[in-house]
Amino acid sequence: MKILVINAGSSSMKYSLFEMGRHCVLIAGLIERIGEAASEHRYSLTQADQTPIQKPIADHRQALQELFGILSSSGLLADSRELYCIGHRVVHGGEQFRQPTLINEQALQQIHANSALAPLHNPANLLGIREAIRQMPQIPQIAVFDTAFHHTLPDYAYRYALPARLYTDYGVRRYGFHGTSHRYVARLAARALGKNLTETNLITLHLGNGASAAAIENGVSVDTSMGMTPLEGLMMGSRCGDIDPAIHFYLSRMLDLDSQAIENLLNKDSGCKGVCGENDMRAIHKLAETGDKAAILALDMYAYRIRKYIGAYYAVLGRVDAIVFTGGIGENDSLLREKCCHNLSALGIAIDSGENQNPARPWANIATGDATVAVLVIATHEELEIAIQAQECVAQQSESTR
Amino acid sequence: MKILVINAGSSSMKYSLFEMGRHCVLIAGLIERIGEAASEHRYSLTQADQTPIQKPIADHRQALQELFGILSSSGLLADSRELYCIGHRVVHGGEQFRQPTLINEQALQQIHANSALAPLHNPANLLGIREAIRQMPQIPQIAVFDTAFHHTLPDYAYRYALPARLYTDYGVRRYGFHGTSHRYVARLAARALGKNLTETNLITLHLGNGASAAAIENGVSVDTSMGMTPLEGLMMGSRCGDIDPAIHFYLSRMLDLDSQAIENLLNKDSGCKGVCGENDMRAIHKLAETGDKAAILALDMYAYRIRKYIGAYYAVLGRVDAIVFTGGIGENDSLLREKCCHNLSALGIAIDSGENQNPARPWANIATGDATVAVLVIATHEELEIAIQAQECVAQQSESTR
Repeated sequence: MKILVINAGSSSMKYSLFEMGRHCVLIAGLIERIGEAASEHRYSLTQADQTPIQKPIADHRQALQELFGILSSSGLLADSRELYCIGHRVVHGGEQFRQPTLINEQALQQIHANSALAPLHNPANLLGIREAIRQMPQIPQIAVFDTAFHHTLPDYAYRYALPARLYTDYGVRRYGFHGTSHRYVARLAARALGKNLTETNLITLHLGNGASAAAIENGVSVDTSMGMTPLEGLMMGSRCGDIDPAIHFYLSRMLDLDSQAIENLLNKDSGCKGVCGENDMRAIHKLAETGDKAAILALDMYAYRIRKYIGAYYAVLGRVDAIVFTGGIGENDSLLREKCCHNLSALGIAIDSGENQNPARPWANIATGDATVAVLVIATHEELEIAIQAQECVAQQSESTR
Repeated sequence: MKILVINAGSSSMKYSLFEMGRHCVLIAGLIERIGEAASEHRYSLTQADQTPIQKPIADHRQALQELFGILSSSGLLADSRELYCIGHRVVHGGEQFRQPTLINEQALQQIHANSALAPLHNPANLLGIREAIRQMPQIPQIAVFDTAFHHTLPDYAYRYALPARLYTDYGVRRYGFHGTSHRYVARLAARALGKNLTETNLITLHLGNGASAAAIENGVSVDTSMGMTPLEGLMMGSRCGDIDPAIHFYLSRMLDLDSQAIENLLNKDSGCKGVCGENDMRAIHKLAETGDKAAILALDMYAYRIRKYIGAYYAVLGRVDAIVFTGGIGENDSLLREKCCHNLSALGIAIDSGENQNPARPWANIATGDATVAVLVIATHEELEIAIQAQECVAQQSESTR
């Protein structure tokens, strides 16, 4: 059974074709700079090298033609009827979408309605979905939402202390993101612990270019650090995460910045980049090794803020079976993992520096033998999770219409 | 030895006269609605009843004349030379003021320079100081800063993940507030525990109309929930505390609110008031008892957010000797204390419901017998702390000039 996963951005399209029997990736590719003269398409077939193709790709329609052309010419999808379904990543599901959803006109309208909450993402996601439906009308297409895994948050965790009408009339609340990643690693963590997911309490840390933490109680998300948007919470590559909400007014008064300029500053010039000029964690480590004080500070801040979230979610959960590190940084940065777990032995959290150096894939427990909380490093796979959820959604749909 | 403490607001002036030998209040008063036709002066002499006086008081000069008039006519201060010093509360000390400071022209300039960081408070504080100096030029006058106790925060705790120049050029960082209260109860907590303050780790919760938490390691503040301004952190009476920093942009787009309108909304219409329409905690409890869902949610949110800070600061400190509740709500609201400590037994925190009902003054330990962390309820006294710090400052000054 083959499932295609599409993640459409405003000028890019990421895709993966899965053989679901073995959960293996047949081809993964990225089309970038759509609409520019120098568009580029790179993809890899299983273990083969990247093959970048440069040609102008004017819009999402041409991008999908290019994608389906490669699937066909490579022989991976001789007939489009081999495709069980297409899973589309959609960033913001608002309050309506609590699970993967078969896309029909009503669903498209609702996704569109959530664009106000994610103006940079939902419209681009919709472009890809509409074009994929046009080109593959006979294939079931499923929307899988970044926010859906967090729909189980209790009201006292998702509400902000703002006028109630902002929630009821405008949807201002915590939604949370990275849901497919938190869900994927939560399932693997329970398996690694030999427990049922429904009896497992976890603090999952997705640390990539974006970063978020989630408190998972008996398998369901009960709190998460990203909020109404992906700007809240942990320190990120170029996003500020938590700040004093009065800083905006100060910047407006002192630097005469307007709302758009402050939004750009907090999203694009802040985080690690703001503190030390670099947003790539490997580059920051290199700088820190040379004694660069700003880089050392950025690492200290990054880890310190994660430690505070670990403590906060420990208090929320009462009992924690495991801390899970995932995402590009979470999976590969042993030094940061060590800094994040520093001085947490009062919480039963301690990592073995040897085990931490080069943990096995796809998962490893790097906690010391006498620590009461496991510390797992798990390779996340958001595209596979989208494929799995899309498959389940189609199966349930067929079940219910039988 | 007598010390006068003055807290000047833009249209009010609060004062207390202390007899320092017994740390007792000789008179405490409040002059309100300065500049309006219906100004009011209320004060109490030791245990006597309030005596409200209504008369127009045009400005801070008249307010101080009124104040010194009462001190003189009551016989509490027959001769102004009986006054050892005057301690002035100043909200924002910026980075310069790390301790109580004898006020001279240079200090006045620096306090004025910090007005950009606290435009609602510092200019009003300065009005009171300048007038007090004019009327009592021979008495040493000391500025005691709300921020000073938190000057020991490490850089990774006080810096935001924002462009570095916002810190270096504009002073954008966490300062923290309620410093006199956190310092006062920290000292009493160490005494209650029978420990040296310099060996005591505490999480202090000042819960009043404003609210803040502090992590205190070996007697010094290492983190606190209020930030560059008193808007960040815990949920408060009408202030929002922590929110997604992108909510501003959404409100600007969806409701067409400008920066000033959003600032008012977050400061005056949010917090408990925003969630349930009430900002007085006693009124919220009454509503909740009738089954009002918004009031129940406000209480749940208020306590939940405190629990998260307790967990976060537990992770920061590693070892916690006591949680300290203080401020109007912290000292008097047994139900909230119970909700704040709910389900924290994994951290060694548990309170005895009997002890929690009516804790003794000025302090009581309400933890269960087998809890490893003490839970102290301590009556704060910010004015006395200002008097104590002012006294120490004058004594050191005399010492160094001897």
